[in-house]
Amino acid sequence: MLREATIEPRQQPRQEILRAAARLFQQQGYDATSMNDVAAALKLSKGGLYHHFQSKDEILFHIMSHAMDITEERVINVARRVEDPEERLRTLIRLHIGVVLSEEDREITVMLHENHPLPPALRRKINARKKDYVHFVENLIADVQRQRNSTSQVTPRAAAFALVGMINWIYQWYKPGGLLTGDAILRQFTEIFFQGAVG
Amino acid sequence: MLREATIEPRQQPRQEILRAAARLFQQQGYDATSMNDVAAALKLSKGGLYHHFQSKDEILFHIMSHAMDITEERVINVARRVEDPEERLRTLIRLHIGVVLSEEDREITVMLHENHPLPPALRRKINARKKDYVHFVENLIADVQRQRNSTSQVTPRAAAFALVGMINWIYQWYKPGGLLTGDAILRQFTEIFFQGAVG
Repeated sequence: MLREATIEPRQQPRQEILRAAARLFQQQGYDATSMNDVAAALKLSKGGLYHHFQSKDEILFHIMSHAMDITEERVINVARRVEDPEERLRTLIRLHIGVVLSEEDREITVMLHENHPLPPALRRKINARKKDYVHFVENLIADVQRQRNSTSQVTPRAAAFALVGMINWIYQWYKPGGLLTGDAILRQFTEIFFQGAVG
Repeated sequence: MLREATIEPRQQPRQEILRAAARLFQQQGYDATSMNDVAAALKLSKGGLYHHFQSKDEILFHIMSHAMDITEERVINVARRVEDPEERLRTLIRLHIGVVLSEEDREITVMLHENHPLPPALRRKINARKKDYVHFVENLIADVQRQRNSTSQVTPRAAAFALVGMINWIYQWYKPGGLLTGDAILRQFTEIFFQGAVG
């Protein structure tokens, strides 16, 4: 047992680095954080860090990619398996809010929304994955509108941006332990999306 | 005429500085931008810049304050004058979307949403003004729910966060000249908030 425990942090050194770097970027700012700071926070030698990542840009890119991996694995891949479109959309809303509120992943996923300067080629890769996500939500909303014979003037595209916006914005105001619990947010945001807020 | 034109940029030197700094912060990152860069972009001497602002923190704080001034003047102060609650809420949605989409102000208002490290006392001042805005929206939604004898389970507070979130998120995806025009966004986001997206 002891042996496993001491070995464990080394098993996923890249993920450890990404997590520690994301924390530092948020605490002291992306540009103000050096590769040395990241190495020091992990008690790694500079060589040890450079063995995994060549630059801060590369670290930022992999933090963002990891955030998209999390979203695809825990939201899209699970929602996909739900047969009924409306149930699938409700599941997606629940899982996406879950990722945004996840204490464990917040430091990683928050980085997706801050517009730190990334080299254009890397920025394009992240933006393409963000677009794929919105596109998945858009198609799902179109399925739900069809299923309900909706007479709504709202296009699936505008609805997808509104939904993703209201959920991704949560990190700007959410306080763990506050009046609005995760369950309350889920219930109310789902109702707003399906029925509006003042009906 | 010529005389006026050459004098004009000097008439509001502080606003010129804030606008130029906001542009630089977005192009090359907040931390990577120095006071020298800001002075150079405006063809100001370093002394000329320091005459107006003592530090980059102070510039960032005043950019954010100016963004809140814009929101209060153009959204709250105008919406306040509309008597009917539902009309008032529709006006607020229209004006808030207008501020987010305003090409002239975007470089200023975007800075509100990026979490650059600001000294705690200044950060608290900005956060208090953001909270006042959400509170205004919350009270307005409560008025509309009362007026409509709403049976919604959605609390005005959750609804305010959802509405402010979907609108403030627009800057993350909006492309001027794209398929979703400002008018289309306004119409559809208003419908989503009042009736949901799949009715």
